[in-house]
Amino acid sequence: MPTKGPLLVVTAHPGDFVWRAGGAIALATKSGRRAVIACLSFGERGESASLWRRGAGLDEVKAVRREEGEKAAGALGAEAVFFDAGDYPLTETPELVQSLIDLYRTLQPSVVLTHPPKDPYNVDHPVAGEIARKARILAQAAGVPGEGEVIGAPPVFCFEPHQPEVCDFRPDVLLDVTPVWEQKLAAMRSLGAQGHLVEYYTDLGRRRGVQAKRNSGPNLGLPVDAYAEAYQRVYPQVTTELD
Amino acid sequence: MPTKGPLLVVTAHPGDFVWRAGGAIALATKSGRRAVIACLSFGERGESASLWRRGAGLDEVKAVRREEGEKAAGALGAEAVFFDAGDYPLTETPELVQSLIDLYRTLQPSVVLTHPPKDPYNVDHPVAGEIARKARILAQAAGVPGEGEVIGAPPVFCFEPHQPEVCDFRPDVLLDVTPVWEQKLAAMRSLGAQGHLVEYYTDLGRRRGVQAKRNSGPNLGLPVDAYAEAYQRVYPQVTTELD
Amino acid sequence: MPTKGPLLVVTAHPGDFVWRAGGAIALATKSGRRAVIACLSFGERGESASLWRRGAGLDEVKAVRREEGEKAAGALGAEAVFFDAGDYPLTETPELVQSLIDLYRTLQPSVVLTHPPKDPYNVDHPVAGEIARKARILAQAAGVPGEGEVIGAPPVFCFEPHQPEVCDFRPDVLLDVTPVWEQKLAAMRSLGAQGHLVEYYTDLGRRRGVQAKRNSGPNLGLPVDAYAEAYQRVYPQVTTELD
Amino acid sequence: MPTKGPLLVVTAHPGDFVWRAGGAIALATKSGRRAVIACLSFGERGESASLWRRGAGLDEVKAVRREEGEKAAGALGAEAVFFDAGDYPLTETPELVQSLIDLYRTLQPSVVLTHPPKDPYNVDHPVAGEIARKARILAQAAGVPGEGEVIGAPPVFCFEPHQPEVCDFRPDVLLDVTPVWEQKLAAMRSLGAQGHLVEYYTDLGRRRGVQAKRNSGPNLGLPVDAYAEAYQRVYPQVTTELD
Amino acid sequence: MPTKGPLLVVTAHPGDFVWRAGGAIALATKSGRRAVIACLSFGERGESASLWRRGAGLDEVKAVRREEGEKAAGALGAEAVFFDAGDYPLTETPELVQSLIDLYRTLQPSVVLTHPPKDPYNVDHPVAGEIARKARILAQAAGVPGEGEVIGAPPVFCFEPHQPEVCDFRPDVLLDVTPVWEQKLAAMRSLGAQGHLVEYYTDLGRRRGVQAKRNSGPNLGLPVDAYAEAYQRVYPQVTTELD
Amino acid sequence: MPTKGPLLVVTAHPGDFVWRAGGAIALATKSGRRAVIACLSFGERGESASLWRRGAGLDEVKAVRREEGEKAAGALGAEAVFFDAGDYPLTETPELVQSLIDLYRTLQPSVVLTHPPKDPYNVDHPVAGEIARKARILAQAAGVPGEGEVIGAPPVFCFEPHQPEVCDFRPDVLLDVTPVWEQKLAAMRSLGAQGHLVEYYTDLGRRRGVQAKRNSGPNLGLPVDAYAEAYQRVYPQVTTELD
Repeated sequence: MPTKGPLLVVTAHPGDFVWRAGGAIALATKSGRRAVIACLSFGERGESASLWRRGAGLDEVKAVRREEGEKAAGALGAEAVFFDAGDYPLTETPELVQSLIDLYRTLQPSVVLTHPPKDPYNVDHPVAGEIARKARILAQAAGVPGEGEVIGAPPVFCFEPHQPEVCDFRPDVLLDVTPVWEQKLAAMRSLGAQGHLVEYYTDLGRRRGVQAKRNSGPNLGLPVDAYAEAYQRVYPQVTTELD
Repeated sequence: MPTKGPLLVVTAHPGDFVWRAGGAIALATKSGRRAVIACLSFGERGESASLWRRGAGLDEVKAVRREEGEKAAGALGAEAVFFDAGDYPLTETPELVQSLIDLYRTLQPSVVLTHPPKDPYNVDHPVAGEIARKARILAQAAGVPGEGEVIGAPPVFCFEPHQPEVCDFRPDVLLDVTPVWEQKLAAMRSLGAQGHLVEYYTDLGRRRGVQAKRNSGPNLGLPVDAYAEAYQRVYPQVTTELD
Repeated sequence: MPTKGPLLVVTAHPGDFVWRAGGAIALATKSGRRAVIACLSFGERGESASLWRRGAGLDEVKAVRREEGEKAAGALGAEAVFFDAGDYPLTETPELVQSLIDLYRTLQPSVVLTHPPKDPYNVDHPVAGEIARKARILAQAAGVPGEGEVIGAPPVFCFEPHQPEVCDFRPDVLLDVTPVWEQKLAAMRSLGAQGHLVEYYTDLGRRRGVQAKRNSGPNLGLPVDAYAEAYQRVYPQVTTELD
Repeated sequence: MPTKGPLLVVTAHPGDFVWRAGGAIALATKSGRRAVIACLSFGERGESASLWRRGAGLDEVKAVRREEGEKAAGALGAEAVFFDAGDYPLTETPELVQSLIDLYRTLQPSVVLTHPPKDPYNVDHPVAGEIARKARILAQAAGVPGEGEVIGAPPVFCFEPHQPEVCDFRPDVLLDVTPVWEQKLAAMRSLGAQGHLVEYYTDLGRRRGVQAKRNSGPNLGLPVDAYAEAYQRVYPQVTTELD
Repeated sequence: MPTKGPLLVVTAHPGDFVWRAGGAIALATKSGRRAVIACLSFGERGESASLWRRGAGLDEVKAVRREEGEKAAGALGAEAVFFDAGDYPLTETPELVQSLIDLYRTLQPSVVLTHPPKDPYNVDHPVAGEIARKARILAQAAGVPGEGEVIGAPPVFCFEPHQPEVCDFRPDVLLDVTPVWEQKLAAMRSLGAQGHLVEYYTDLGRRRGVQAKRNSGPNLGLPVDAYAEAYQRVYPQVTTELD
Repeated sequence: MPTKGPLLVVTAHPGDFVWRAGGAIALATKSGRRAVIACLSFGERGESASLWRRGAGLDEVKAVRREEGEKAAGALGAEAVFFDAGDYPLTETPELVQSLIDLYRTLQPSVVLTHPPKDPYNVDHPVAGEIARKARILAQAAGVPGEGEVIGAPPVFCFEPHQPEVCDFRPDVLLDVTPVWEQKLAAMRSLGAQGHLVEYYTDLGRRRGVQAKRNSGPNLGLPVDAYAEAYQRVYPQVTTELD
């Protein structure tokens, strides 16, 4: 069986791909697939409070966040691409959308991960998700200009927001990330600016693991201490077998 | 890789498993798995209008529907078990639930198919689905008496009702049934009493096939003239890979 | 154009058809149609607190409520049929459902009105609506025994509960009842036991009238001081013209 | 009875009004009403893949789509107005909204048809629907400048998207288009660039016809082989009679 | 116990804060708290039809609406701040959002009231609510520039739209405004341009009062003729006691 | 201010009140209020797998679970009342409902806690919640026989199910239980049969605490390491102040 196509992850800020999708990324790269993270901003305004409080300037904040993001991507075996489109608020522009279209067409991803449509705690997450889904549709159309070939219809998975129930997030996929948990842990630890969240997301991984265990049929041999990540599909799953 | 466990289909009436899940059943048996259809009634009152109109009595109606159901099951390579619990209305009783629990435990299914929770056009479909889901939970508990071993947590898929949008049915799985379409067609044709629906469900199969084609990523090579069936999951999918 | 078929209203208690559907009933009888109200209980326990507080016994409470219900039905030009099935709680039994099936088949209604599925303030309303919708489906099936001919598919409208937003009631039909408002007022006034609600439902009629005015296109000449009742359809509207 | 006011259809691309609302348009013009189609773009980028693949340039693509659109509109007895606002993505601008306001006020439509709010397969459809609904509200306000008189409150119907269940589309109106089916067929056939969809939408028309038949009460004599189109209301129906 | 922080109300037009939140504002000022109303426009185009019809120019309309708004705010003991950002349509701009951020930071409100997300009858209400919620999140981030200190997480309440059920408005808080009803009445009466609504909103206040009475536990001694306003929370309530 | 009325907790099994509502119970008893737990079954079949596996008989299982339940209730300062109505499945009977009505009337609770309406992992939880809500409504009616005085309208809170997102559980109240966390911990530890869940629910308490901290306005001084429980209201909150 040939290796599957690349994984594309579109996030508003550097931290997002680590906390919410680090396991999926590590699983992909571990199996020999390429994984590219499109980081639309550095999270310089909205997610770097500790840097601002100790007096850092804008350029310094961005540089620190870029470094952290690259380190975390490296720990997951992935490549991070930074679009420096600004945050808080992240704004959709024709240029940003076109850059994403070009990335879709040159990368030809077989799976896409991004933010879900609603998050009443964060102004950038829904915008990033909207841009990711929009650019994917535009990249499918032969009449839309840009580099590379038009793409097919890669499935899109929304990863879990920080407060899922209030974001109308209903997990319909639980991904077993037990085999790469150490890698995700390493990536989380490389995010100095938000270090207090490591314990929080370790708890979450364990809880989602328990749920995966409880929801898995007899065909899937999950370990007792499994770790999992939750996702929500944008489009129906297409399959050749129900399981 | 070992063959997967049996497929269990719980329906209110004999016709249901053919129109709504015939493809899934044929796919399972084709791959060497056992498929058992638990038919809670013969649909003798609610789905046999043409037999009643030509003057048949209750026993004759049941006999005709049983024969049709067995023929259809045979065409799909499956076994039909009839519970003769009465229809229109089908009523939940402790005895019927216990029979289902026993079936779950002796069969140890790895996948379950049944009706979705809402159908404003039919009084039996939601009841059958409710019994199927309830008995599955009870069969998991060591303290509930009955034959056989407790079961694991087989995933449950609701198949498509006749008027999906009005039933709050949102297809989240499209199953490619192209390789067994001829078998489903043969099963549909064996249902004399409701023969006018064959064309209707052929159209539906084709339309779901077009949608499967439109929703499938680059990894799945669906043919242009694919046929598909739509399903909705009750529990989150548990997986080791996003695709 | 031939006169349309009868209107059937299925309610849990006598008061319900007056407050929630009195205008629709009066409109039907005014245009020469028959209107039958199937009152499943007398509301003797749940809606007769003032009678109980002044020391009335069960039979007396029932008699008073029956008299009030008949008077109100008369004021609307309709016939009330009492099933005396008990209230608080009203319970579904095979016999009660069969009585309804028989009524559907002998009456052959062209429109049905009943309670919506959810009401967290009243235990009987959802039960009565469920019975009404269930009996309608059963009355359509040739195989279900009972008096009279099978029925067609009369549309079902749920009338407005007392606290609509908390009951997930979304009005999708606003019925102009201005021409019969005096009749509805008279019917409301004949309900001695719940007299304090007349003002409340007059306010509601006016408010729904204002909304009807605001939502009506240029083809419908609603008066400035219109009165209206709100309904929610169970099945899609079938029409030969969009308006 | 005076002839009703004009029908206004607002679509993103030329094909949309044919596939999704061709029957409603033909019904209106057949009864002597004017029907105007506001086509916001030519669908030159998003729905003309075959033209691009055979090497056509932008102007040629637009010209071909305009010609097809005019031919289809003609087959339905309607007038097409092209706004050439660009597609994939179609973008809301103050100028485009003002043009629509002016059209509403000069046309004074009694019914409006447009796209529903959600479509995860198309970036332009939701935008066109949003513009149509927004301009209608603005055209009602005396303080908003522009040509013509302020309008009343014409009802708005959303027509059916390509994959209704995934678009949260719940059909609440089924329109019998049997009397004009041949006209809709002719219009569909005039759309050369998307010819493969004729069979698909013929199937859909038949299926919606079956549902209309199943949902229609005894007052509406639908033929066995009826064709129908599905719509969803934005505002409550206002009526003088429940049926 | 120290006096609580200020109340901030963000509305699209001057009338909104009176009809929908006048009671909450008066309650706050009566208890010694400051209340500031951020009125994003004068409602000069969308809510001043009578002024336009009698021939007033834009500046005059604005002046009249400002005066009315200030009078109404005064009657409630509150301060009105006008942003003159234009209405019908009200448009989000970076400058307007920044002004709001600055207001949040200088005011440090402990509670925020604004419009709910959906209103199919008004183009400005959802925009104003979106701006209010967005600016609140941005004002929390240390990296976002602007005057004053970052704010905490004040709860946000959406007030009741004109046609609640069609706006998906589900009241989850009923605020007893009986003690300040006379003040709200006076404020409503000061809005000359929309005077016909006073009776409408008095009816609504009474109806919400009846519902508050019916929903209040034994701990809250609401009067029989209570008046109330309905609100919907954006974020979960945080409390130290369930009641 | 007088002490508030008693807290009533209605659960399907003994474990439920500890894991899901132990903090609320301890808070109530700490403030001097009475707390009564109506435990409809012993969870003898559905939640005692380890006892069955080691060969215990039905009576022994019940005795163990009763002892654990009483110990846990005692640790929370509450009284447990066992109805021994059977579990897996727990079934609603007129007698069980009447017992609850009597309890409501003799206890006169000012707050009620119970299970939410949906739980696809457990057949008893929704039934217990339904009985609790139904009996509360019946206990309000003067015409319903039974001991004690009719009750008012105590608010009802649904506590958090094990897999909240899949149960449509949307937390709209976060209760700070930090002051009684040690007591809840002690109660959890007294449940020998399900001891492995202590860590799981400690994690959950911490996570809900973080969310409470993030959602609380400036008026509520939550500690950094707060613990919280999540609840969902059945009826709107009635209040005299927005906060």
